[in-house]
Amino acid sequence: MSNIRIDGRALWADLMETARFGGTEKGGIKRLTLTEEDRQVRDWFASACTALGCTMTVDRLGNMFARLEGQDPTLPPITMGSHLDTQPTGGKFDGILGVLGGLAVLRALRESGHVTRHPIELINWTNEEGSRFSPPMMCSGAFAGAFTEEEVLDKRDRAGERFGDALDAIAYRGEQQCGDHPVAAYFELHIEQGPILEAEDYVIGSVTGVQGMRWYEATVTGRDAHAGSTPMTMRADTLSAAASMIAAVSRVAQDHAPLGLGTVGLIENRPNSHNVVPGETFFTIDLRHPDDAALAEMEKSLLTALDSVAESGKVTLSIRQIWDAPAVPFDRRCIDIVTDSAKEAGYTPREIVSGPGHDAAYMARITPTAMIFVPCRDGLSHNEAESITEAEAEAGANVLLGAILRADRVF
Amino acid sequence: MSNIRIDGRALWADLMETARFGGTEKGGIKRLTLTEEDRQVRDWFASACTALGCTMTVDRLGNMFARLEGQDPTLPPITMGSHLDTQPTGGKFDGILGVLGGLAVLRALRESGHVTRHPIELINWTNEEGSRFSPPMMCSGAFAGAFTEEEVLDKRDRAGERFGDALDAIAYRGEQQCGDHPVAAYFELHIEQGPILEAEDYVIGSVTGVQGMRWYEATVTGRDAHAGSTPMTMRADTLSAAASMIAAVSRVAQDHAPLGLGTVGLIENRPNSHNVVPGETFFTIDLRHPDDAALAEMEKSLLTALDSVAESGKVTLSIRQIWDAPAVPFDRRCIDIVTDSAKEAGYTPREIVSGPGHDAAYMARITPTAMIFVPCRDGLSHNEAESITEAEAEAGANVLLGAILRADRVF
Repeated sequence: MSNIRIDGRALWADLMETARFGGTEKGGIKRLTLTEEDRQVRDWFASACTALGCTMTVDRLGNMFARLEGQDPTLPPITMGSHLDTQPTGGKFDGILGVLGGLAVLRALRESGHVTRHPIELINWTNEEGSRFSPPMMCSGAFAGAFTEEEVLDKRDRAGERFGDALDAIAYRGEQQCGDHPVAAYFELHIEQGPILEAEDYVIGSVTGVQGMRWYEATVTGRDAHAGSTPMTMRADTLSAAASMIAAVSRVAQDHAPLGLGTVGLIENRPNSHNVVPGETFFTIDLRHPDDAALAEMEKSLLTALDSVAESGKVTLSIRQIWDAPAVPFDRRCIDIVTDSAKEAGYTPREIVSGPGHDAAYMARITPTAMIFVPCRDGLSHNEAESITEAEAEAGANVLLGAILRADRVF
Repeated sequence: MSNIRIDGRALWADLMETARFGGTEKGGIKRLTLTEEDRQVRDWFASACTALGCTMTVDRLGNMFARLEGQDPTLPPITMGSHLDTQPTGGKFDGILGVLGGLAVLRALRESGHVTRHPIELINWTNEEGSRFSPPMMCSGAFAGAFTEEEVLDKRDRAGERFGDALDAIAYRGEQQCGDHPVAAYFELHIEQGPILEAEDYVIGSVTGVQGMRWYEATVTGRDAHAGSTPMTMRADTLSAAASMIAAVSRVAQDHAPLGLGTVGLIENRPNSHNVVPGETFFTIDLRHPDDAALAEMEKSLLTALDSVAESGKVTLSIRQIWDAPAVPFDRRCIDIVTDSAKEAGYTPREIVSGPGHDAAYMARITPTAMIFVPCRDGLSHNEAESITEAEAEAGANVLLGAILRADRVF
């Protein structure tokens, strides 16, 4: 339908060039939000967009909008974006591919001479990672109305520095009220941060939504006892009970295959001594499913199973839910746009649910939204060894370009 | 058969009086071996024995022998004993009851005017606990030929102090070569350190031996992965696998009920983070059984089960045995002597296997040996809250007295 193509080499050069801002010895990036390194990459980004003829808007939380004007300036923009901040030992692609891939889209449009109907905007969201100021995705959240500007500005990092002061210090507090910015649709290109596409040999994932997630903390209480003198029948062994509970978490997830996930990542055992029957065991539970009803069912089955283990193990279980993030289904039209764009570019896309949260999950609250995933090596992310190929970056950006052009016609 | 009886009130007074040496605020005792507190209780003990007309011998490792002469000084002595050292947060009865109960036996014999055929000796073993100098039961071990004097004298505590120097510092290095001391039989009174007698409402346990024990360390290796983006089928989750392995440890013990014991007391999980599928899990295994053949069978079943879990969990298991202490069966004549003595004193004794090791386990290598257990509240031991009643102390000492008198006739 269109002969416009991404310049893959230029995209890769941008990825490598900006990786210098906060670059680490091991080939990763440490570019925490609102630091000097963040300012450097923002300045670079603003220059690059301006050089393409974009106008830049910055809102009061530092979110950056690069706008390429369309035929009808009264239409709300088709948008795309992601983030340029990283984890403390982050990689070169998480978030960054979505922004610089968007820049490649703008460059392709500009160089082709094609003028879209809508304005096209590329967004760099402030503080997606949440590793300096918690929670993550705070500024797309504020954009979507989940937080107020004041709440965000008053957040403090562990050193006590206020978000608003840090924003001022790098001179990225803009004039526009956060969220006072019409949007027609939103697309985000991102690395998968999981192993599925690579394992199943797909180049493109068409993301149907972000799965729901519930987190719990469980404490099992029993009785310390001498491992050499306490008969099995007289024990209240909390680690043994916790072991059966951990097995129940896996079983409940497997009962909801293939989309249900259940993980016990953290365990602490007391007194944790070789020859003492444990008397207190703490562990966390992480349940996920793209469908909230299924997630609620998983929770119900799990709680029943855990109670039964506690009773037969003669221990007490105290469990509390510490986080409930409902599933976010993306817009079917946008998903189809991504799928069609991928096919047009010659790829068979795999429909996939995002494990991690993304800025797109907040944007989905206020505008038609979808995402494009590309594989990352060994599913590795939040890691300096995070890796993708130039061809994968180019493929993802081409699908993003196609999606923007399709959305320009659909909306 | 005999009208000689223990003075329970005097025994209790001795227990309470000596509890001052190293006494803690919480009612326990901190009396590590070869410390100033140990010297104080040894001095008290030597005085008390001498006052009863005993002669004291101290060997080169500080083991103390209080001898009440019998009719035939050429006969080897019938012996009894235990230890006066404690854990860092020990109780008032572990070990101490065996020594002061023995003192009550000497007092009862002395006051009755009854003169035994054999000499009767009461032994205070050096360093039973092993919490300052490792391993435990080092000096009864040397007495029985398991260690040389030199090995023991050269042991160092965590501060680097040599056993021999610490022994000199409290002036308890004697002349007699350790082990160069004939013995006709050995009896040891001790608290059970487990819950069985109390739960089944017995006052006296007639101990048939010390169970065999094998310790293992297991490391499960898999692959860290993102809890939100890694399908259940693509995980190599080491905590989930370890949970099934822990269940197998309990199951193998239950398959060898009621005497088989299996415990996982210690677990360490990596990276141990809420939303990361664990990639390495370490845990210990403690298997016990009074019968070595049964213990070997337990080990075999367990290893088969663990291999099968590792295979189905797609993880690697590395397991090594770090300790193998064979079972110690006590002398049937001595067990019967204890049982008959208990019945004579009006108790129905329960035959019981000792979970923990004791000096008696080494003595059983060189002389007919048995033990007497009395209950301790809630099975609690190695704890400042360790507790028994005056009546239980008196009952145990009466059975010890009866056993000594019977042994005096049998051997």
